[in-house]
Amino acid sequence: MLVPIALESQLAEQGKMHRLGREAIQTYWDNAMPPRLTIAPGDTVVFETLEASYGNVAREAAQQAPAGLDPELVALIAAGAYPKDPEHQGGHPLTGPVSVEGAEPGDTLVVEIVAIAPAAWGWTGCRPGGIGLLDDEVAQGDRYHWDLRDGKTAHFEAGIRVPLAPFCGVMGVALAEPGRHSTIPPRQAGGNMDIRQLTAGATLSLPVLVPGALFSVGDVHGAQGDGEVSGTGIETEATVTLRFDLRKGQTIRQPQFRTVPQPSVPAGPYFAATGHDPDLREAAREALRGVLDYLERERGLKRTRAYILASACVDLKISQIVDAPNWTVSAFLSLSIFPG
Amino acid sequence: MLVPIALESQLAEQGKMHRLGREAIQTYWDNAMPPRLTIAPGDTVVFETLEASYGNVAREAAQQAPAGLDPELVALIAAGAYPKDPEHQGGHPLTGPVSVEGAEPGDTLVVEIVAIAPAAWGWTGCRPGGIGLLDDEVAQGDRYHWDLRDGKTAHFEAGIRVPLAPFCGVMGVALAEPGRHSTIPPRQAGGNMDIRQLTAGATLSLPVLVPGALFSVGDVHGAQGDGEVSGTGIETEATVTLRFDLRKGQTIRQPQFRTVPQPSVPAGPYFAATGHDPDLREAAREALRGVLDYLERERGLKRTRAYILASACVDLKISQIVDAPNWTVSAFLSLSIFPG
Repeated sequence: MLVPIALESQLAEQGKMHRLGREAIQTYWDNAMPPRLTIAPGDTVVFETLEASYGNVAREAAQQAPAGLDPELVALIAAGAYPKDPEHQGGHPLTGPVSVEGAEPGDTLVVEIVAIAPAAWGWTGCRPGGIGLLDDEVAQGDRYHWDLRDGKTAHFEAGIRVPLAPFCGVMGVALAEPGRHSTIPPRQAGGNMDIRQLTAGATLSLPVLVPGALFSVGDVHGAQGDGEVSGTGIETEATVTLRFDLRKGQTIRQPQFRTVPQPSVPAGPYFAATGHDPDLREAAREALRGVLDYLERERGLKRTRAYILASACVDLKISQIVDAPNWTVSAFLSLSIFPG
Repeated sequence: MLVPIALESQLAEQGKMHRLGREAIQTYWDNAMPPRLTIAPGDTVVFETLEASYGNVAREAAQQAPAGLDPELVALIAAGAYPKDPEHQGGHPLTGPVSVEGAEPGDTLVVEIVAIAPAAWGWTGCRPGGIGLLDDEVAQGDRYHWDLRDGKTAHFEAGIRVPLAPFCGVMGVALAEPGRHSTIPPRQAGGNMDIRQLTAGATLSLPVLVPGALFSVGDVHGAQGDGEVSGTGIETEATVTLRFDLRKGQTIRQPQFRTVPQPSVPAGPYFAATGHDPDLREAAREALRGVLDYLERERGLKRTRAYILASACVDLKISQIVDAPNWTVSAFLSLSIFPG
């Protein structure tokens, strides 16, 4: 749920509601970075977030409209204001840091995801030599621009619709270690965990590692499968509302969370392919190949488009991790995304 | 759904319905093993399956009733007839092989899971030095005997109830390679895949690797989480009804399947813990530790009981497999298993 406007202004008057916008973007983790906002436990913050490419994809799309994209959406993209990364760091643009009064190492920061409102469009891509699970099998890069304007589904080609389930790919606190740290790998401090179940209503707990916790957020995905197999979800800008709380003296070893029932999750039917290998990553690659084969042969998608679709909605499950020497990964594709 | 008795006898008269019982048990894969049954595509077979320990757990429980187990259930276990493994192979007792007329290498065998009726009880265990994901952190072995008599849930201690969702841990065809092969690792031929979504209504496709396919089945689990983290699901004997079909000339690279909507799957809420590591298996271990911590601290379970419960119902998801150097595994625990 969004916070009702009347409640928001009431909270703002009481100093419990804050806003943090694009003036507070950085592209790395550094516990020496001064906080852009200091709040009390119980406060709510509305963040404006940029998408992972720091506007580069939008600038390209505005200059050279992608084939097949609704001209009205192209005009909408072109009309957007996309700041450029002033430092060319290459990390995720993150909004923050927010300091939480009283937070000390050994405490737990509790982040309630109140609402996530994505932009009207998003993108997913793949490229040879990229970070994706099968990028070594991609001959030519590909990118898809999704229409998110109906607010419920992401529109793909051939009438395929992926349910929107927006979440923040990156939510984290500053590391205990000094210096600048890449935003790419997730860690004990959270960060780029890309956990798709962290949708509105979920509650994330993060270990506090420095005084104030120094929380930042970004990299919203309109939807993503478990795995984010091509390396990108449905990358989009967003307005994110989070409420913060503190559990003093309660220490957790790693980030953990609670979800709420998600009525949008399809019960099935699913198509699934399997992989069996002593290396879980190889098992996942083989399972994903089976789903891409299906999308190519049975559904007529180009291989790279199948891969992009899979990144937005195929779930990698560890079916078993005990039957040595081969572990089993299954890749699940909801068949309810197809028309008719 | 179970096949109605009237339909079953009608099919049996037509030679389309078959039974294969405990007279057809073996504990390894070998494509030279003569078929115990030969069927035509379209036929249905009702299999009697043994549980993974080949009756050893039942014999032990009958001799020395486990503490806390309902005496009526102990009497039921004691009254059962449990054959002993004549060859002491140590593999899963499998019922089969079934030869399918006309099946040739390069075809696909389609197995429709019509019905799975588990026994009145099952077991889950862990032990130091076993195959489980955290068995190296187990100081003393433990085993839990589940009461499955209500037909809908598996009864755990402290009022915890795990929804029954029975499936066959092992379904597979003979390998192309000659000789005896262990039943433990799953392979291209299927086998011990332990995929919990293969419940009644699902359809499994297996690549045919030898003439006749030579299908066998066993190792039914009353329930299991994705991962089977302690190395055992809810191990139980069962009556399994499968319908076979053949797709001539259609070749698949690995086993694949389709599921049907499962109304018994809880939508949430879930508690989840995360792990982040360059090795997916280590990430899974860390995520599982987080769930065991939760079960121990918040729910008061002994560590080994938490581990056993997790094996029956905790799901390992690969949240992301692209944010090098750390991959993220999340371990999900449905909170709807707890009373009140």
